[in-house]
Amino acid sequence: MSFREVFELHPHPTTVDHEVLLRCIGECLDCAASCTSCADACLSEHDSQELVAAIRLALDCADTCDAAGRVVTRQSAPDLRLMRAVVAACATACVACAEECERHLHHPHCRVCAEVCRRCRKACDEVLAAIG
Amino acid sequence: MSFREVFELHPHPTTVDHEVLLRCIGECLDCAASCTSCADACLSEHDSQELVAAIRLALDCADTCDAAGRVVTRQSAPDLRLMRAVVAACATACVACAEECERHLHHPHCRVCAEVCRRCRKACDEVLAAIG
Amino acid sequence: MSFREVFELHPHPTTVDHEVLLRCIGECLDCAASCTSCADACLSEHDSQELVAAIRLALDCADTCDAAGRVVTRQSAPDLRLMRAVVAACATACVACAEECERHLHHPHCRVCAEVCRRCRKACDEVLAAIG
Amino acid sequence: MSFREVFELHPHPTTVDHEVLLRCIGECLDCAASCTSCADACLSEHDSQELVAAIRLALDCADTCDAAGRVVTRQSAPDLRLMRAVVAACATACVACAEECERHLHHPHCRVCAEVCRRCRKACDEVLAAIG
Repeated sequence: MSFREVFELHPHPTTVDHEVLLRCIGECLDCAASCTSCADACLSEHDSQELVAAIRLALDCADTCDAAGRVVTRQSAPDLRLMRAVVAACATACVACAEECERHLHHPHCRVCAEVCRRCRKACDEVLAAIG
Repeated sequence: MSFREVFELHPHPTTVDHEVLLRCIGECLDCAASCTSCADACLSEHDSQELVAAIRLALDCADTCDAAGRVVTRQSAPDLRLMRAVVAACATACVACAEECERHLHHPHCRVCAEVCRRCRKACDEVLAAIG
Repeated sequence: MSFREVFELHPHPTTVDHEVLLRCIGECLDCAASCTSCADACLSEHDSQELVAAIRLALDCADTCDAAGRVVTRQSAPDLRLMRAVVAACATACVACAEECERHLHHPHCRVCAEVCRRCRKACDEVLAAIG
Repeated sequence: MSFREVFELHPHPTTVDHEVLLRCIGECLDCAASCTSCADACLSEHDSQELVAAIRLALDCADTCDAAGRVVTRQSAPDLRLMRAVVAACATACVACAEECERHLHHPHCRVCAEVCRRCRKACDEVLAAIG
């Protein structure tokens, strides 16, 4: 995806490991879209009334991933406290959504969504480790 | 604003203090819009090159307030870990943006933006106190 | 709300009528939050399976209002084609959501949500008239 | 990316061509992230005061792509008027941002950003052709 290339062309690149940041941005994009799609799929399931928590947490997770992905994308004049707090919130949202989706593994979209949430959480944790 | 009324009509209302939640949602909406507007005003200032951090942090703060406002708005099947992490991230973003805006008080939009960030941070802290 | 004050302090204010723009921004904020809240309330209703379209359109409308509100808030170097297209999309989303919510007036949150969508649509139409 | 897989697992899949929709969603994600990154890179350039329009339009384009990507992702109970208006707004935002970025080709991030905007516009046009 082209955002990686744009990111690498910043005039004052961040000193934080680029691969760690780019993996996090990519996972946040995929997780936000996957959660939006899983919430929508759950909504149309015949047992949607059993999926209220899954839908709600997927919506929360999509919104949090969007915010985190944008914050991590910006390299100008970073504030590490802010980045840490937003990425930590994203990791927490991903865990909450993954745990709930894992309770509905009979729905394959919940299984895939849980996997992408777990990967995104891992990518967030790597950013947290990299920025200290 | 009507969102307060919609919030109060939820079939299974949250047990968390509604006034605390509604104040936080309102401040998140105002802070997100004020930060979007302040970033845009900074961009057009003759000394915009001194305002790179203010612009960047206002963009981060707007994105974080949007996510927090949405998460706090939802009452179905809440996950308090998730809500806590997102509201804490919002409080942190508001402080970072306020501190930077306060370095540019010769720009009245930065002064007003800092004030709304401080109010939003306070409203977030009240949510954190209410959800324990 | 403070965003009005920040908006008025822009160093190069737009020539488009400020009251028309500010009303649109305010309605977009309220409509986005009301739709987020109505979708969440619908999700918890006992007849949520009758409300799939209402939930889906409220989510779409919230996302579209958020984008339109941000675009209308920015005054630096505007592109009127872009603003027109985004505000028109917002008006269309508001009508679609209002019409669906009006099919569920036994849920008071749908009634209030339809009203705020109608108001937001009107505010968008006024922007479209003002920018020609 | 996993969102493609989640999309394909929807219980009531849309009749609109999936490849056309998935390409649009993918381009919207990439364009939103690329525009966020390009706006941030422009902000740090020594000639940022020549880049006010590029920054502003990239922010608008990111917000519009995010909204369009979410609307196109949802398959439950679609409203084609709404989808058409939002995707058309996205196409318009992409053109406006591409045209402005193309005025700054000495900045490689503007060149790449213009390319992704052109691709996203094309993907949006294909959705518009597919939904009629």
